[in-house]
Amino acid sequence: MSPITPPTFATLRKALLALAVAAPASLAAGAVLAPAVAALAEVPGQQRTQAPGFYRMAIGDFEITALFDGFIDRDRKYFVGVKSEDIIGLLDRMFLAERPEIQAAVNAYLVHTGTNLVLVDAGAAKSPGPTLGFIADNIRAAGYSPEQIDTVLVTHLHPDHANGLLRLDGSILFPNAEVRVAKAEFDFWLGGGAVAKAPAPLKPFFAMARAAVAPYEAAGKLKPYQPGDGLLPGVESVAAYGHTPGHSGYLFRSKEQSILLWGDTVHSHALQFAHPEVVIEFDVDKDETIASRRRLLAEAAALKLWVGGAHLPFPGIGHVRTEGDGYAWVPVEFGPIRSDR
Amino acid sequence: MSPITPPTFATLRKALLALAVAAPASLAAGAVLAPAVAALAEVPGQQRTQAPGFYRMAIGDFEITALFDGFIDRDRKYFVGVKSEDIIGLLDRMFLAERPEIQAAVNAYLVHTGTNLVLVDAGAAKSPGPTLGFIADNIRAAGYSPEQIDTVLVTHLHPDHANGLLRLDGSILFPNAEVRVAKAEFDFWLGGGAVAKAPAPLKPFFAMARAAVAPYEAAGKLKPYQPGDGLLPGVESVAAYGHTPGHSGYLFRSKEQSILLWGDTVHSHALQFAHPEVVIEFDVDKDETIASRRRLLAEAAALKLWVGGAHLPFPGIGHVRTEGDGYAWVPVEFGPIRSDR
Repeated sequence: MSPITPPTFATLRKALLALAVAAPASLAAGAVLAPAVAALAEVPGQQRTQAPGFYRMAIGDFEITALFDGFIDRDRKYFVGVKSEDIIGLLDRMFLAERPEIQAAVNAYLVHTGTNLVLVDAGAAKSPGPTLGFIADNIRAAGYSPEQIDTVLVTHLHPDHANGLLRLDGSILFPNAEVRVAKAEFDFWLGGGAVAKAPAPLKPFFAMARAAVAPYEAAGKLKPYQPGDGLLPGVESVAAYGHTPGHSGYLFRSKEQSILLWGDTVHSHALQFAHPEVVIEFDVDKDETIASRRRLLAEAAALKLWVGGAHLPFPGIGHVRTEGDGYAWVPVEFGPIRSDR
Repeated sequence: MSPITPPTFATLRKALLALAVAAPASLAAGAVLAPAVAALAEVPGQQRTQAPGFYRMAIGDFEITALFDGFIDRDRKYFVGVKSEDIIGLLDRMFLAERPEIQAAVNAYLVHTGTNLVLVDAGAAKSPGPTLGFIADNIRAAGYSPEQIDTVLVTHLHPDHANGLLRLDGSILFPNAEVRVAKAEFDFWLGGGAVAKAPAPLKPFFAMARAAVAPYEAAGKLKPYQPGDGLLPGVESVAAYGHTPGHSGYLFRSKEQSILLWGDTVHSHALQFAHPEVVIEFDVDKDETIASRRRLLAEAAALKLWVGGAHLPFPGIGHVRTEGDGYAWVPVEFGPIRSDR
């Protein structure tokens, strides 16, 4: 060991705290603390771009590609069901309490089953703003094209899942795909009965849902399904009603492995694993939402299922374990595709 | 709500459990359960490639690029300090207990400070096997080239951090870089005194360390530093001795933000956050390793520091919080570079 006394971290702590209290511009980039050292190579500009938004894994013989559509900043006031100070405490525990908004990923999933190329949800398109609408780009980054997709399974007809079915000009983005959605979901948004009873802030969602699927319906490619209908080889729907009346997950299984792509069963990993009773204000039936979430969390934990969630931190894939009175989220570890585990 | 009874998850549970107990080949890909549906589009081949191994974020005006070198499967027997059944329990909690090996990422970090392009650690090169050695590829995928790097800060001279300094032919990979390493680290591995006393299984590490830096030393570009020496504007070394005698992290700070790239302070997120007393068999001084880990975990949690770790799941960036008698790891959420948080 070197006899020289190392700098203690307590020293750094003092320096950092001083910076946090009052950070004069001269301290930016450590100007005070470090000597100037001439760069040996010419320094290029910063890149400031992110890696492509896809992530791949294997489930048996199926290839799962998580696709990042972008993110939404959600005001924390939309989450209710526990005291607001508890919400802040739960966010702080995940280092998310500094800002009033909660960053929520918007994920979709492309599954190659060997016989089908299946997209689960289609993202938001650009309509909600410039931070979303990257599904088509990321399908291409992942080596596929929208034209190759034969089936789109929609978890529910909210705009951040269905608007991406269309290009910005309103034309069909997936010209060779059938769009499948639960019959209860189709009836609620397009049946005409529910919109009259909906609260005013939710009424625009009905027109958006109709617009998102109308070109597919006109082309005879919108196919509502009944619960229990077979969908594709190795693919079944899983009822997760409440958030919307037909909100459904999709269970993919190949050989001894399976993954449940559960849509919006959890809107916030920071809040709803620990407290499944937290709801989001636009859950259509809050009691049913909580019951569905509790049921799926319990089953996912008991079965050690792989799950994928539309608003969990990208890639949104991981496991659920019980923890205390609630649950905890265990995200997948990045790595190459390993079919050996 | 649709009056039709949805399939309950209990049904799926039964089906999945049946599959788990005895999975006949005919159940693969759900052949029994789903009808054949003709694909509407021609199904392309599976891609089976992973996304590029880089991840970007901002720390003040600094751009941080995490780089994935690959992974090592470590036998769990290398981790000691709690009972082996506790090790298995901790792994099971993270869904990692099914196999005897623990997948450990090997990460490096490229930091563009505005004045310098700094690499922290260089990965393993291909020497330990084909699952490693992707640092140069990922530097290029991230938009830079090895030639542009002016400084390599090495946390310690183990082969998975230093072998990547060279190409496979033994030539310098970073021709315009100075390589900086703590003097205590340099003295231990290259000084000649320690190798004689080292246990036989560790002796090859001395020759590897020497080989990794020799071409830089010959070119006058290997510059050991003393603790407290200024390194670069906004960059300081942080003592984390024990795993090796000069094992050091690097603290980068810009404006009011900072990130501590702490090398091997944690070898396994599943084990050592909850139980900092777990050591890995090749920690040179186990008591000092534990003391350093406890000190850095406590400070990282108290200061809510961003940290980046060489063997944490890629990108290895996140926060540490206290939890029970130990700590918990909170990984960064994927997203575009946001300078607003």
